[in-house]
Amino acid sequence: MRKSGFFVALALSAAVATPVVAQMDVKDQIETRQSAFTFAGWNMGKIKAQAIDGDVAYNEQQILAAANAIAAVANSGLGALFGPGTAMDKNDNTDLKPEFFDKPDKAREVAIGFAQASNKLQEIAANGGDKAAIAAQFSEVGKSCKACHDEFRAE
Amino acid sequence: MRKSGFFVALALSAAVATPVVAQMDVKDQIETRQSAFTFAGWNMGKIKAQAIDGDVAYNEQQILAAANAIAAVANSGLGALFGPGTAMDKNDNTDLKPEFFDKPDKAREVAIGFAQASNKLQEIAANGGDKAAIAAQFSEVGKSCKACHDEFRAE
Ligand code: HEC
Ligand code: HEC
Repeated sequence: MRKSGFFVALALSAAVATPVVAQMDVKDQIETRQSAFTFAGWNMGKIKAQAIDGDVAYNEQQILAAANAIAAVANSGLGALFGPGTAMDKNDNTDLKPEFFDKPDKAREVAIGFAQASNKLQEIAANGGDKAAIAAQFSEVGKSCKACHDEFRAE
Repeated sequence: MRKSGFFVALALSAAVATPVVAQMDVKDQIETRQSAFTFAGWNMGKIKAQAIDGDVAYNEQQILAAANAIAAVANSGLGALFGPGTAMDKNDNTDLKPEFFDKPDKAREVAIGFAQASNKLQEIAANGGDKAAIAAQFSEVGKSCKACHDEFRAE
């Protein structure tokens, strides 16, 4: 679980890379990105319960597993699931605002912010997972989710 | 990205651990486990396209990101999403067979098989990601998915 500039660069390039799969249809793109975010959200919830709310006992192995999962989502090349025609102006089953396609620089910025914050959480968890440090970086990851939602997700 | 007996043991214990979150309701458990599997399946698809079918160029960074994602799902403590009352005898929106709850040893066995196969795929990808080795281990992970589906997922 060593981290280096190389791994961070790798992770960032994966986060904003061009599609890595054969073209998926619109419905599959929407359902798969919702699944990825639901899975990330579940893992955020585990860290929240253990490191913030304290209603579940703090367990470093589980924190690391959750941090690995969130980072894996952030580095999975989600961009491939935001293809043309997948916003809510053309589909009922999504909350993606059509503005997403008018603001590629902003989209790139929030995606990179998510990857950076998640990689740092993973790094802290891999290096012993001090509870206060995890709690602080959890909050940064949460901000990176919110940065994207505020911009691109309908309420 | 070193792997050792310790990490494998850690991963396995996470895979079969007791719930790590405050109790989720039945609907959330079902939707979250479906999301986790959908996300794993998407990442399996990327590896298939690059290492087996060859319809997308082979990219070691993307293979590693996908392998990390599959391992993250396998090690995320999915057991917490298979609580009592979440099978298809009591819910419309799931394919989980009720037999799941009568066969805890089998459930444990397939969960461990999934974690072991996924951790090995991640290890191969982290150590250079030779295409033939990735293809061979991808097939083992696929068998671990199928082992569970044959037993516990309705057609
Ligand atoms: C790059 C932008 C972006 C980032 C970063 C992001 N989200 Fe989202 N999220 C979205 C969009 C867009 C949607 C709506 C997707 C849709 O309906 O197609 C969404 C939807 C969701 C959903 C609902 C999924 C569903 O089933 O409909 C959850 C939960 C969620 N996000 C949680 C998170 C969490 C937790 C994080 C950070 C750990 C995060 N998101 C980071 C853009 C983002
Ligand atoms: C521990 C058992 C188990 C393992 C291991 C497993 N699955 Fe599944 N899978 C299930 C069950 C049970 C369901 C049905 C879930 C439900 O409907 O509640 C399912 C559902 C799915 C679905 C449909 C999800 C949806 O949206 O309804 C996909 C796709 C899938 N699995 C892919 C995979 C892949 C790919 C792997 C391996 C990388 C895998 N599964 C490993 C048990 C397993």
